Amino acid sequence: MGKPFLARLGANESVFGPSPKAVAAMQGAASETWMYGDPENHTLKQALSEHLGIGPEHLAIGAGIDGLLNSIVRLTVTHGDTVVTSAGAYPTFNYHVNGYGGTLHTVPFKDDHEDPEALLAKAKEVNAKLIYLCNPDNPMGTWHDAQTVQSMIDRVPEGTLLVLDEAYIECAPDGLAPPLAPDTPQVIRTRTFSKAYGMAGARVGYAICAPEMANAFNKVRNHFGMSRISQAGALAALQDQDYLHATVEKIAKARNRIAEIARANGLTPLPSATNFVTMDVGGDGDLARALVASLIARRIFVRMPFVAPEDRCIRVSAGEDADIDAFAAALPEALADARAKVG
Amino acid sequence: MGKPFLARLGANESVFGPSPKAVAAMQGAASETWMYGDPENHTLKQALSEHLGIGPEHLAIGAGIDGLLNSIVRLTVTHGDTVVTSAGAYPTFNYHVNGYGGTLHTVPFKDDHEDPEALLAKAKEVNAKLIYLCNPDNPMGTWHDAQTVQSMIDRVPEGTLLVLDEAYIECAPDGLAPPLAPDTPQVIRTRTFSKAYGMAGARVGYAICAPEMANAFNKVRNHFGMSRISQAGALAALQDQDYLHATVEKIAKARNRIAEIARANGLTPLPSATNFVTMDVGGDGDLARALVASLIARRIFVRMPFVAPEDRCIRVSAGEDADIDAFAAALPEALADARAKVG
Repeated sequence: MGKPFLARLGANESVFGPSPKAVAAMQGAASETWMYGDPENHTLKQALSEHLGIGPEHLAIGAGIDGLLNSIVRLTVTHGDTVVTSAGAYPTFNYHVNGYGGTLHTVPFKDDHEDPEALLAKAKEVNAKLIYLCNPDNPMGTWHDAQTVQSMIDRVPEGTLLVLDEAYIECAPDGLAPPLAPDTPQVIRTRTFSKAYGMAGARVGYAICAPEMANAFNKVRNHFGMSRISQAGALAALQDQDYLHATVEKIAKARNRIAEIARANGLTPLPSATNFVTMDVGGDGDLARALVASLIARRIFVRMPFVAPEDRCIRVSAGEDADIDAFAAALPEALADARAKVG
Repeated sequence: MGKPFLARLGANESVFGPSPKAVAAMQGAASETWMYGDPENHTLKQALSEHLGIGPEHLAIGAGIDGLLNSIVRLTVTHGDTVVTSAGAYPTFNYHVNGYGGTLHTVPFKDDHEDPEALLAKAKEVNAKLIYLCNPDNPMGTWHDAQTVQSMIDRVPEGTLLVLDEAYIECAPDGLAPPLAPDTPQVIRTRTFSKAYGMAGARVGYAICAPEMANAFNKVRNHFGMSRISQAGALAALQDQDYLHATVEKIAKARNRIAEIARANGLTPLPSATNFVTMDVGGDGDLARALVASLIARRIFVRMPFVAPEDRCIRVSAGEDADIDAFAAALPEALADARAKVG
């Protein structure tokens, strides 16, 4: 459009940014970028190992969860294999499954939540190689508690691997994630520095899994694939948990403000354990799509779920007060426009 | 070993580093790393397009040549397909071929050069999907002239794609590379910011190819896989051609010094169009391996070819004067030790 967005609240990036210590570490590493990064990611793995209380043999580092999902699908899915996910869940996972020739089977969301029982049943029915569950969920922001997820892990069918995507876990209340138990071979968990840690552009994610699976990554990953600067930034970000906690508090406050603004405009915010709020616009997908377009025309970047009935909603990422002010200022007219257009 | 290397001359990194403008661009981008990078690499593609004088539709950007080779192999090779390379050529290419189930066929180097005629003949014989040629070559540093490479391109068998790896092309004399002619479907050329541009740790490479091939990358690449900081750094590095040219001059001077030191110690340096000098130690692989170990024990990091008869050589990357001084100081004793060990 020629003009930058007033508020960038569409991609679940963290406007609160990375820790200043991570920024400083990246700036310091810039002049060292003539050297390859450590192909073993040794220091970052050690630090994650200590932080998580699990052995480094349970960790695989990758270029964001996207890069890890690529490797996970490559290691487990070949032409004709079946994979189960929720209709409208993370499209990049589907992209990788399609890319390696897998066949996707989907189950619907249930009351705006992913549906563990339906995912398990479908996986059993189609003899799936993978089940994908994002908890807390994107794009709805909803979640299942630790007990529910643990029960799902316990019942993953023989021959199936559960990909438990915990991209947003740092934004969630304590205790939402089941214990790591990283020797459990039927689950691989993915986490990232892209969301609460505020480093989406650095491409650093990690997987927590059984050692056999972590070793398998070494057979397919690009060994020198990690940016040296990103390695330095992720390490410093991990070591600044105070900053992370402060960010998580800001995210929680931003969620509350966004929810209030939604309600004040007659929309219904869904509860969220992520860094965004998904809100029911009160119509169908056409109305929500019109609202997204209308907000973007007002230089407010938001996105929305893309499968019915979840596509009655729009999704607004947490932002600074100024971002949310801009959203609040644009929403009433954007909503009026959208309603006028859809009729 | 607990102590850092005195000279890091083993990985063909550029100790001369990236342009200060690239470092500044990366430092400036560090605080923007909360945002994803541009998934289309639009700005970098446009700049490369202008620099190379070809349309952006001929370009694919990836996480270094390693990342591009992964995509190239994935797009062209499946179980049972055959691939031709030189015995002792770039092992990461072989790693990807093995990873996607391809079968490697190798031909020997000929007089320390890759052998285009043997590669073509073998490709025809085994009906290869890919031929890999690195020009100028790693690990020997030798090269074929533009006419020879063009003649090879012209005779690539039907159904075969030539992967022309030009990682070191900026270090080579002008005119060594054949004209780009990027509509030619039988060749894909790979280049990088890791070598002469001095940004190995940033992971930015690009492929020059027919538009159909460039489009195919979009079906398998990680769309948000590029580090935002690396994108900014590569753009600034490309825009500072003066710095590149100055670096290339430093590399040429360093090559001359390394060659002189080799000769002064009774070793035979090979001619090189890269950022390293490969030198014949005058014995077999055991002697060269002993020399590499003996240099590393003296905190001088070098590497060597790993297939006979090329493994009679060691490979020394260009360095600053101090690096080369350290190499020169260590070499006589290291050589005496190696000779004593091998006997």
